[in-house]
Amino acid sequence: MKRVALFPGSFDPFTKGHEDIVLRGLGLFDEIIIAIGHNTEKSNRYIKIDKMVSLIRDTFKAFPNISVQTYAELTAEFARKNNAKFLLRGLRNTTDFEYENSIGQVNRYLNAELESVFLITSPQFASLSSSIIREVHRYGGDVSMLLPYKL
Amino acid sequence: MKRVALFPGSFDPFTKGHEDIVLRGLGLFDEIIIAIGHNTEKSNRYIKIDKMVSLIRDTFKAFPNISVQTYAELTAEFARKNNAKFLLRGLRNTTDFEYENSIGQVNRYLNAELESVFLITSPQFASLSSSIIREVHRYGGDVSMLLPYKL
Amino acid sequence: MKRVALFPGSFDPFTKGHEDIVLRGLGLFDEIIIAIGHNTEKSNRYIKIDKMVSLIRDTFKAFPNISVQTYAELTAEFARKNNAKFLLRGLRNTTDFEYENSIGQVNRYLNAELESVFLITSPQFASLSSSIIREVHRYGGDVSMLLPYKL
Amino acid sequence: MKRVALFPGSFDPFTKGHEDIVLRGLGLFDEIIIAIGHNTEKSNRYIKIDKMVSLIRDTFKAFPNISVQTYAELTAEFARKNNAKFLLRGLRNTTDFEYENSIGQVNRYLNAELESVFLITSPQFASLSSSIIREVHRYGGDVSMLLPYKL
Amino acid sequence: MKRVALFPGSFDPFTKGHEDIVLRGLGLFDEIIIAIGHNTEKSNRYIKIDKMVSLIRDTFKAFPNISVQTYAELTAEFARKNNAKFLLRGLRNTTDFEYENSIGQVNRYLNAELESVFLITSPQFASLSSSIIREVHRYGGDVSMLLPYKL
Amino acid sequence: MKRVALFPGSFDPFTKGHEDIVLRGLGLFDEIIIAIGHNTEKSNRYIKIDKMVSLIRDTFKAFPNISVQTYAELTAEFARKNNAKFLLRGLRNTTDFEYENSIGQVNRYLNAELESVFLITSPQFASLSSSIIREVHRYGGDVSMLLPYKL
Repeated sequence: MKRVALFPGSFDPFTKGHEDIVLRGLGLFDEIIIAIGHNTEKSNRYIKIDKMVSLIRDTFKAFPNISVQTYAELTAEFARKNNAKFLLRGLRNTTDFEYENSIGQVNRYLNAELESVFLITSPQFASLSSSIIREVHRYGGDVSMLLPYKL
Repeated sequence: MKRVALFPGSFDPFTKGHEDIVLRGLGLFDEIIIAIGHNTEKSNRYIKIDKMVSLIRDTFKAFPNISVQTYAELTAEFARKNNAKFLLRGLRNTTDFEYENSIGQVNRYLNAELESVFLITSPQFASLSSSIIREVHRYGGDVSMLLPYKL
Repeated sequence: MKRVALFPGSFDPFTKGHEDIVLRGLGLFDEIIIAIGHNTEKSNRYIKIDKMVSLIRDTFKAFPNISVQTYAELTAEFARKNNAKFLLRGLRNTTDFEYENSIGQVNRYLNAELESVFLITSPQFASLSSSIIREVHRYGGDVSMLLPYKL
Repeated sequence: MKRVALFPGSFDPFTKGHEDIVLRGLGLFDEIIIAIGHNTEKSNRYIKIDKMVSLIRDTFKAFPNISVQTYAELTAEFARKNNAKFLLRGLRNTTDFEYENSIGQVNRYLNAELESVFLITSPQFASLSSSIIREVHRYGGDVSMLLPYKL
Repeated sequence: MKRVALFPGSFDPFTKGHEDIVLRGLGLFDEIIIAIGHNTEKSNRYIKIDKMVSLIRDTFKAFPNISVQTYAELTAEFARKNNAKFLLRGLRNTTDFEYENSIGQVNRYLNAELESVFLITSPQFASLSSSIIREVHRYGGDVSMLLPYKL
Repeated sequence: MKRVALFPGSFDPFTKGHEDIVLRGLGLFDEIIIAIGHNTEKSNRYIKIDKMVSLIRDTFKAFPNISVQTYAELTAEFARKNNAKFLLRGLRNTTDFEYENSIGQVNRYLNAELESVFLITSPQFASLSSSIIREVHRYGGDVSMLLPYKL
């Protein structure tokens, strides 16, 4: 049976830290779905959703087992519909750990078959966060080395 | 002298984790006041304040020494008015600890007689947070097992 | 019914941080038993157990509801024998929190009626640890301001 | 290609928390090797190594894809010899996270192909540690509910 | 060569904790620039920027090597323009540490010569945060002991 | 006045992480004394003290303002004797932070003029610890890339 993992997030924007987790996750899973949570009603993204989808698809175009989707429902529910039994998650630090610990247990309550699997972000990317990158980009700073594509 | 404790929070909504702390707190205190911080001007609650008060009252109707109140002032001041010498607080994880450590010291500065008392949330409830429950409920997920009442 | 709390530890030595927790605990409990865990076989204390017992007794001689005992069994078991339904514990930082979180749950498994109650150490004592004090004393440093008695 | 994971530890003793991680790891890996680090020269185990090996084998005797081995070399080296490309690890709390973060990066430096994969320990087992269980058992406490076998 | 440090923040308001770091930083640096990040477009300050600048200047008027400036660009860029090779930062707790760890690495990526230097906030001020002080002040609480000036 | 900093530790062995902190510290201090704590009576080092001193001296032989000394007294006392007003310390993670927070406050109590100054270890070295390196070396693993000298 194929092992399918969801890699959920808002990815505003998708960083080299995210790319690191997805590529390393390929050793574990037969298929990875990058799933961008997106609520059209209260959307307030820095990078428009369509642009982000297209940039990520481009980044992984050489990988037929990596796909990109958007969703506007519970992650646990979206995983079920896609036959994804795993959530792939990156951990950068203890703040991430405490958050993921909470989310992972609630996801299991909502979907008992859903297992959250964690990789620790590679040290050179551990300081990256989408919010810091937005801040740098907003003020005209150069973020090209922090993203796996050209914004 | 009666030991009266305030259990303050926004409780939007009140969870099984909160219930766990209140019930265990009954062993320590003669009276517990569940105090819902509520600023009418900038209120932006998911569950309306009147509904929440009524649901919590119902939850504890068998306990004459548990009451529910709303307040719109400093917690330290509201405690003083109610002759509550203790703040009862639940700790779920290190993020909670760091936050409570700060708040507790400021509360003591504002009201030198006010002692913050902590219980560690039982493990089966440690992942619950009001914000996660709101998110699940917003998307139509089943939260009935996470709340001590029917929403 | 009297609320009796055990304040367990190795207290090698008992510090001003420990004293802070005991004195603040008096607001919560009718009686506090300072319980020094002590395994005679593999004892390797810096301050001899008899001396420590006597120094702590002296420290609290004005408080008839504070007593000092030694024990060489499970804390949960010693609490049961002394009708102590509470363990009083001080939290200094997140490292303490993670440790106490584990210990507290195991103690509850061993004695379902035993509730661990936490106070956060006052900031001026939050850096004190028995091991640091031993290190300072060993090298002839002045520890008199860190202890509630004269060593 | 088969996905083989090493689950390394000293397992003194192997707990229900360890069992939880191994069983959940079966969804991710085709084969799991429980690897007990064991230095014969400076061995100071509470439970003898032979007894522990036999108790764990018994625990998983229904699972042909779970095996138990001892080793006395670098974990990264032992993984290479067994064609294990993954280390399976459980995370209980932030203290575990910081430790595993360090170890995982060094293991990758020693064996660039070795990926550490983390599951968060289920909440009911998050307080279990081998050292706490040893302490309880040493004093005659009942540990039967904390272990997946009869000691 | 003079060692110039930037002490950046939003300082809404500047607290006794901030003052503690600046004064202790004087031992390390020949000149300290207190730099208030301020985006005029989306400003939503509790204390107006001009008032804050003036209150901080007053606080340090006896120190010719402490100056106050506002800026609306990347901190790394503002440091470069002012020939500041150091960012001075206070650490209160582990939450601060994780945040500063991320920010510091990104700042170094943006300005390779910029070194972040940390002092740990003195314990009596470790619980102070601008957001708690705003909350207390909003409800009419007395914050005079928490600020180095009269608001 | 010259700014002299002590960089204290047991350095068993001195790692590339330590080297990183010392070299970056040169921007802050006019002179850095690497101070190896060493109690001859209960010494149990993996790398002999004389060998370590000589390896570190060699590492920094191009830097006349970096020296190496051993000491067997309180760090605060040794700093005073050397007119060092600063302790230079590296922070790798939250566990380090909590430890340094305690030690720093006690050092200030022992020597009110002694300021602890922290740099966050560069990410590529954040996983290094002397104890992990000893473990790897003991089993014959290659540690040459983790040390600034040939062992």
